[in-house]
Amino acid sequence: MIIILGDGAHAKVVQSVFGAPLAIHCWDSTDISVDDELCFGMAHPQHKRQLVEMHGSSHKFASAIHRRSFIDDTVLWKAPGVQVMAGAILQYGVFLGRYTLVNTGAQIDHDCVIGDYCHIGPGAILCGNVTLGDDCVIGAGTVVVQGVSLDAGTKISAGSLVVRQDDVRASRRVLRGN
Amino acid sequence: MIIILGDGAHAKVVQSVFGAPLAIHCWDSTDISVDDELCFGMAHPQHKRQLVEMHGSSHKFASAIHRRSFIDDTVLWKAPGVQVMAGAILQYGVFLGRYTLVNTGAQIDHDCVIGDYCHIGPGAILCGNVTLGDDCVIGAGTVVVQGVSLDAGTKISAGSLVVRQDDVRASRRVLRGN
Amino acid sequence: MIIILGDGAHAKVVQSVFGAPLAIHCWDSTDISVDDELCFGMAHPQHKRQLVEMHGSSHKFASAIHRRSFIDDTVLWKAPGVQVMAGAILQYGVFLGRYTLVNTGAQIDHDCVIGDYCHIGPGAILCGNVTLGDDCVIGAGTVVVQGVSLDAGTKISAGSLVVRQDDVRASRRVLRGN
Repeated sequence: MIIILGDGAHAKVVQSVFGAPLAIHCWDSTDISVDDELCFGMAHPQHKRQLVEMHGSSHKFASAIHRRSFIDDTVLWKAPGVQVMAGAILQYGVFLGRYTLVNTGAQIDHDCVIGDYCHIGPGAILCGNVTLGDDCVIGAGTVVVQGVSLDAGTKISAGSLVVRQDDVRASRRVLRGN
Repeated sequence: MIIILGDGAHAKVVQSVFGAPLAIHCWDSTDISVDDELCFGMAHPQHKRQLVEMHGSSHKFASAIHRRSFIDDTVLWKAPGVQVMAGAILQYGVFLGRYTLVNTGAQIDHDCVIGDYCHIGPGAILCGNVTLGDDCVIGAGTVVVQGVSLDAGTKISAGSLVVRQDDVRASRRVLRGN
Repeated sequence: MIIILGDGAHAKVVQSVFGAPLAIHCWDSTDISVDDELCFGMAHPQHKRQLVEMHGSSHKFASAIHRRSFIDDTVLWKAPGVQVMAGAILQYGVFLGRYTLVNTGAQIDHDCVIGDYCHIGPGAILCGNVTLGDDCVIGAGTVVVQGVSLDAGTKISAGSLVVRQDDVRASRRVLRGN
């Protein structure tokens, strides 16, 4: 059985991806049997890391791919725990790390390399050849232009425009709409 | 027969949703028979209110849902007069009021509650748990971040970023790109 | 056989549209037989113009329409060399010029008239009744509001908001996010 860990709103969105009644537990539940597969019910990298530390050696993390996303045949991912929500687009040659979430309507263009545990927010636009380290969070509707590389742990607020990595490196955080 | 009231551009977009030849009348036409269903051919809340005042007690307002939109099974709406255009996404648990228009490619994330007569513009992004009162207009490409509530009648210009409702309450209007 | 001219990233995206093994040549290749059809493997208007000057009188330029785009039945285009990528939306009554590229997830609303050799960037939003002259480049995630007309050769950077054509005419270029 698939157990969704985390009982907030994202858990219900993930449940609707599977389209079947799954169990939703609070995120630190230990009521898990040895045969269960696990699935993230939250989006934050740190919380997902904690869950993988707790359960990663004993359980598999299921991926959740919405039937109304588009994933080009050439996309590669390290299978466990990837989530791709409705309307998301993954173009030619994208590489998606483990435990990464591509949220509603986000689009990742050709040859992007996305690290582990990232969260690409709703409607975010990554142009071609963007590289994200692990644990990056890209806010809703943010545009990252072609070829930008962001360090692990970078957080970009909603509605931002990221033109050069240098803009971000100074503060590690881009505030509202730049 | 379905009569589209309003003979501007939106009327033709709505006609293409039905994919069949419908009658398009000017918005204040009274050449309507008792068996006709009506459909909005314009987007502005105030114009839609006027039509419902004129015809709402005697006629049904048809909904227009584009076949290339995505509406999660859990979405609820008060049926009359809802319009959802091509590429629009309505996620888990969204509630959509009467006579509301979700325009081309707009996305409304989990648990949003949208009032009556609203217009969510092309490509607008409402993150999770956003609440809009009646008659709100959200401009094209605008991002409203998670959890924001906007009062009835709020108008947000195209390309805006709405981070807190307080930003909006002061003026009831957010100008270009904030 | 279809030959993609240009061996960069866009060439591979176009190849994935066809879903079949095509030849990809460098952009100035002359290793083309008389029966080959050609296809652009780059996005820049000037480069596409050079190719059409070289080969347009002797060869046909194929269009590349992604199966996961939406094109309303009423859309018209001058056939040769149009490219529409995954997730793109072309609404009622759009007219698309020759050799124009509508990139990933870009949306063009009702009655827009788009010139030849344009590039509508990833996730860009053109509201209704926008008119673009030839050779325009609209950056990723840019919003052009309803009714704006832009002169031939206008370039708009990523993440911009274009409210009036006058904003653009002065400089012919809108910088980051205005």
